[in-house]
Amino acid sequence: MRALLVVAHGSRREASNEEVRKLCRRIEQEAAGEEFFLVRAGFLELAEPSIVEGIGQCIEAGADQVVVLPYFLSAGRHVSEDIPAEVEKARQRHPHASIVLAPYLGSAPGVAGLLVQLAAGGMRDGDFTE
Amino acid sequence: MRALLVVAHGSRREASNEEVRKLCRRIEQEAAGEEFFLVRAGFLELAEPSIVEGIGQCIEAGADQVVVLPYFLSAGRHVSEDIPAEVEKARQRHPHASIVLAPYLGSAPGVAGLLVQLAAGGMRDGDFTE
Repeated sequence: MRALLVVAHGSRREASNEEVRKLCRRIEQEAAGEEFFLVRAGFLELAEPSIVEGIGQCIEAGADQVVVLPYFLSAGRHVSEDIPAEVEKARQRHPHASIVLAPYLGSAPGVAGLLVQLAAGGMRDGDFTE
Repeated sequence: MRALLVVAHGSRREASNEEVRKLCRRIEQEAAGEEFFLVRAGFLELAEPSIVEGIGQCIEAGADQVVVLPYFLSAGRHVSEDIPAEVEKARQRHPHASIVLAPYLGSAPGVAGLLVQLAAGGMRDGDFTE
């Protein structure tokens, strides 16, 4: 039973946090019963649940493996130090679960193609404002 | 002649800015001669070139259309107000060019699939650290 925790920075603007939670619900629907039985959002700061809490919720829901994916575009201190430190805390709290840290979004090879698609596609459909 | 300007926030950490420039070079290679003849990075603050400068450089290089794509994950003030305001300044400076504002990265429908791919793919390949 594998769960995905998408970790965002967290914002004082609640709509931004909600945008991440909404994305997680969409991933859960799209990936339902395939890769992940559960997809949740977690936040480094300023929003709930925290990373450790989010991992805990996945495990309580029945996950024996939690993949933590940093929803970040660049490999700054948050990605290289802060998130791994939170993941390590969660591992100590849940020694029997497998908690795996995935690469951050910005490092995905598919990002380049997605940007071109977004930049070129909308123009063809004529739904950009000029 | 269409150019793409990928607009990131900009960081005090120069490696993060360079990561965006590197992504742009990769997009340019992948999209070479197809959608965009030129792909450049622009920054809202803390790094060079600015959005207005970046658009200007694309036009100087021969673009008659510049697509400005916010490399942002959430629709905060930067995406909804600051970037459109800079684009408007550039339009006034270059009235004969078409300057188009694309949707921000986080709004791309493909992001969900990319996250699943990133989270599930690496695990299959065994290149995650645990």
